[in-house]
Amino acid sequence: MSTDVESALAESGLDSVPLLDHHCHGVTTDDLDRESFETYISESDWPAPDGATHFDSQVGMAIRRYCAPVLGLPSFATPEEYLERRRELGGVEASERLLRATGISDLVIEVGHRSDEILDPGGMAAAAAARAFEVVRLEQLAEQLLEELVRRGGGSDSFRDEFARTLDERLRRAIGVKSIAAYRIGLDFAPERPGDDDVDEAVRAWADRIARGGPSRLEDATIIRHLLWAAVDRACAIQFHIGYGDSDVDLHRCDPLLLTEFLRLSRASGARVLLLHCYPFHREAGYLAQVFPHVYFDVGLAINYTGSRSDAVIAETLELAPFHKILFSTDAFGVAELYYLGAILFRRGLARALDAFARQDDWPAPEMRRIVESIAFRNARRVYRLGDELFEPELGGGA
Amino acid sequence: MSTDVESALAESGLDSVPLLDHHCHGVTTDDLDRESFETYISESDWPAPDGATHFDSQVGMAIRRYCAPVLGLPSFATPEEYLERRRELGGVEASERLLRATGISDLVIEVGHRSDEILDPGGMAAAAAARAFEVVRLEQLAEQLLEELVRRGGGSDSFRDEFARTLDERLRRAIGVKSIAAYRIGLDFAPERPGDDDVDEAVRAWADRIARGGPSRLEDATIIRHLLWAAVDRACAIQFHIGYGDSDVDLHRCDPLLLTEFLRLSRASGARVLLLHCYPFHREAGYLAQVFPHVYFDVGLAINYTGSRSDAVIAETLELAPFHKILFSTDAFGVAELYYLGAILFRRGLARALDAFARQDDWPAPEMRRIVESIAFRNARRVYRLGDELFEPELGGGA
Amino acid sequence: MSTDVESALAESGLDSVPLLDHHCHGVTTDDLDRESFETYISESDWPAPDGATHFDSQVGMAIRRYCAPVLGLPSFATPEEYLERRRELGGVEASERLLRATGISDLVIEVGHRSDEILDPGGMAAAAAARAFEVVRLEQLAEQLLEELVRRGGGSDSFRDEFARTLDERLRRAIGVKSIAAYRIGLDFAPERPGDDDVDEAVRAWADRIARGGPSRLEDATIIRHLLWAAVDRACAIQFHIGYGDSDVDLHRCDPLLLTEFLRLSRASGARVLLLHCYPFHREAGYLAQVFPHVYFDVGLAINYTGSRSDAVIAETLELAPFHKILFSTDAFGVAELYYLGAILFRRGLARALDAFARQDDWPAPEMRRIVESIAFRNARRVYRLGDELFEPELGGGA
Repeated sequence: MSTDVESALAESGLDSVPLLDHHCHGVTTDDLDRESFETYISESDWPAPDGATHFDSQVGMAIRRYCAPVLGLPSFATPEEYLERRRELGGVEASERLLRATGISDLVIEVGHRSDEILDPGGMAAAAAARAFEVVRLEQLAEQLLEELVRRGGGSDSFRDEFARTLDERLRRAIGVKSIAAYRIGLDFAPERPGDDDVDEAVRAWADRIARGGPSRLEDATIIRHLLWAAVDRACAIQFHIGYGDSDVDLHRCDPLLLTEFLRLSRASGARVLLLHCYPFHREAGYLAQVFPHVYFDVGLAINYTGSRSDAVIAETLELAPFHKILFSTDAFGVAELYYLGAILFRRGLARALDAFARQDDWPAPEMRRIVESIAFRNARRVYRLGDELFEPELGGGA
Repeated sequence: MSTDVESALAESGLDSVPLLDHHCHGVTTDDLDRESFETYISESDWPAPDGATHFDSQVGMAIRRYCAPVLGLPSFATPEEYLERRRELGGVEASERLLRATGISDLVIEVGHRSDEILDPGGMAAAAAARAFEVVRLEQLAEQLLEELVRRGGGSDSFRDEFARTLDERLRRAIGVKSIAAYRIGLDFAPERPGDDDVDEAVRAWADRIARGGPSRLEDATIIRHLLWAAVDRACAIQFHIGYGDSDVDLHRCDPLLLTEFLRLSRASGARVLLLHCYPFHREAGYLAQVFPHVYFDVGLAINYTGSRSDAVIAETLELAPFHKILFSTDAFGVAELYYLGAILFRRGLARALDAFARQDDWPAPEMRRIVESIAFRNARRVYRLGDELFEPELGGGA
Repeated sequence: MSTDVESALAESGLDSVPLLDHHCHGVTTDDLDRESFETYISESDWPAPDGATHFDSQVGMAIRRYCAPVLGLPSFATPEEYLERRRELGGVEASERLLRATGISDLVIEVGHRSDEILDPGGMAAAAAARAFEVVRLEQLAEQLLEELVRRGGGSDSFRDEFARTLDERLRRAIGVKSIAAYRIGLDFAPERPGDDDVDEAVRAWADRIARGGPSRLEDATIIRHLLWAAVDRACAIQFHIGYGDSDVDLHRCDPLLLTEFLRLSRASGARVLLLHCYPFHREAGYLAQVFPHVYFDVGLAINYTGSRSDAVIAETLELAPFHKILFSTDAFGVAELYYLGAILFRRGLARALDAFARQDDWPAPEMRRIVESIAFRNARRVYRLGDELFEPELGGGA
């Protein structure tokens, strides 16, 4: 990076502030061949067409530019050189190097997605030399529970009670929940709490389907709404998938504005709503974060995937939202490269934006450092009710 | 500001051009405590959470940076110092200083919102040393009229006639109307003129509700469409709430594109349609302003609220829209700070954008000055049919 | 342009790379008076209001800045001087000068729009000294066919067969098809293939309407879906109107995300889907281009129309989309000025974006040149199955 950036990073404290990654997933430490690696560096479910490559993208350029040196290669090593070196080091060593270079002190890991192929929170904590916390995916919890109830021959009548009990149990350890309502029913769902009878009826239909050998995948809006309101009743931190994702999502049904009425109804509940990786709806998310006291958001995933353009994306998140409502996340999944890029591009993009404000509007350095700490870890700490004592030791250390 | 900006302001004439604020509201001159002041510097209806503050935002930083010196404080005085100084000067003196420093020569004030707590147009004219014009809120006019008809025991049969008479009377003085259809029914309303019988029936139901002690709040789409078409028939300047607002709005139903068919139907009527504060749909608004000859827009409100990022927002408004279709507004409400920021950030943002065009595409200074005058006051003057004689004396004076 | 830009253009190869304009239309070589010329330099169907002019816009400034010198005038000649000079040279000479200065080597021309007033592909090839290829508008092909069937007294029963035959015939020469479903039914159409019986029934109703003297304009969703699936079955390159257009479009129904399910269903067909001129939904298009292997997009039309702001628009297209999925187009129609601006602003905007990446992230020059060639012509060549031999001679020549 240029000396300008270096100095902006230092001035704002972003070169060394510890990061609390409030939404991320495990990585694999397997040795990866080219094909496997490429599937992890795109949200596409298919290979690039016609002999093209997923490396031919912002994230691909950023891996070659910034990850290659972490593995001991010159910048802009070819994809072949990069993957050869990665295999030479081994997946474990390469992943640890990249994870530990992020300066992330705390990981809030969602465990509901393809958990068989990636490290669990304990494994991630060890690999990254960071603390790890867990977030539970509501839809998966419900699916596992109902499968079990059906397997035990139990009626679906007990589902609501059992779900409440299971959720309470999981929340003894997990610090929040996540919903993928965006994927399953779209965010334009009916916002109010569903009636118990309606839930029971929907669960019966779902249980019957499973009992007949049908898929356990939960796609019923009434049941998903019940799960969400169960979380609201527990005054949880509730993460929502918003915006950018893979080809299974209908992105136009992931605009966070579709949640407006749900946000009104849940405002006074004590629950906090975390709008995840909101690109390209980050301005809409900023509006919600301003007007609703319990709404927070981040623009993760888009940071690592937009690479050289992530500075512009990050700057756009600093418009309507109060600074105490913006969070950091990588939404990294599968390969440690996405963690490293998510972290360094966030540090740089936020430093650049603040530097621009300082140059044109004379923002004082202590104010910038305060804002940096808020976004880097303090806001998330407050939202997830993580006590200060957990974090202080890290301050001034980290990256 | 830097010398670069100073020179761009001078080069384009933006340092001294008088501004016609085509959409704004009154301010309070009360002495405000911290809690009251904070409610005015956010579109949220609630305090910031957990000991956070609405000052911790772009608008808060901009107040400390730019308003503090107007009140005789150093830049970046703390919120406490700022509010203490404000009380020391008194709400009247502080407001006058801020208003008079804007260089706004003309205020087009919408009087329909919380008018009991703020100055009326006459009071604003005096405080700002500016001319003030009035715009009537259609929905409020209808609500007041029907309440009165019901109180007088009158049937609702006369509503359409009485509304026409009342609107004509108000338009003897007011220079346009405003609709908050976005808030009440969403902009996805049926665009065509409703039938008289349908209107009468809807009015009867509404009057019955009021007679039974129900709320007078107008939320009926048929009636609101009738009000809009009454304005179209009078070839009015019709302001529409678009985009960004408080938590009572469903922002996804405030996309100006939802008005497309209404714009087609009203195109040849002689009415002009003013799309207000279009963020984050300002690019969509720019498209409408290009293709429909009677459509104009502004990006007020977002200018004061995005502070250090307002330059980028303003630049985005200068894409598809012809320069004769862009207007200036602050949409300030409640505190004079929002006027001051709206004005100086507009001057600076437009100067910077034009300066960038000049640097990369050699735009000549006289062209820039012409465009500046168009956006600053000439377009609005034409739209609202305000004769040149009203304004010429101010030219060259102002800020 | 500044020396910075000159050097970025040279460094990236954008000063001389030949362009394949994958979506454009014919121009008129008539001598144009002011009124006629103005209708071509706006997407509005009406004159500017109140003595204003369509020249008072980004595209107007860009014409005066960049096209004037091509016609031998100083930059920022007045509109009057410009049009006088244009008439002096004659429409043929002026058009040829502008077209030949673009450095466009290949034109992919859609022939379905107002073809009586503009040059056909052969005429364009001659005027621009470029190769020209043809793309067929599906809806027009169907309209012409059914008109003919009705005229011949033929039943509508043969429509599906005849359409298949006609399309096959046209595709012997044309390199792809275009759909204006966005205009006629909105992109929120039912994505699956319609049943033959449903198609036949809809065709009968349409034929009856024509037989009774009604308009032949095709607005039936079932039939349009049949046309699209006919193209999918032929593994065509299928262009879709997306985003920005004239006042006949409902822009909120032109969001490419509305095509998501259609893209899922057509993914493995061999068809390639080209999302045309996606502003202001270019970020949404970039997402689709990342996740679906057969999706490509461009941001034409908005480049010439946003003038001095086109650099920012182009930069926004370089976020999620892989570089092998981005195409160049002008979408020029009617006057050669739109070709010239589309080409030079594209060259400059892409050069600036890449230069920014190089400055902040050290992108090596050979990588930039590779990406430039991809976007400038190689991606389109691959999508439209145009063999390399067609193009190589041009490389190094061009602009």
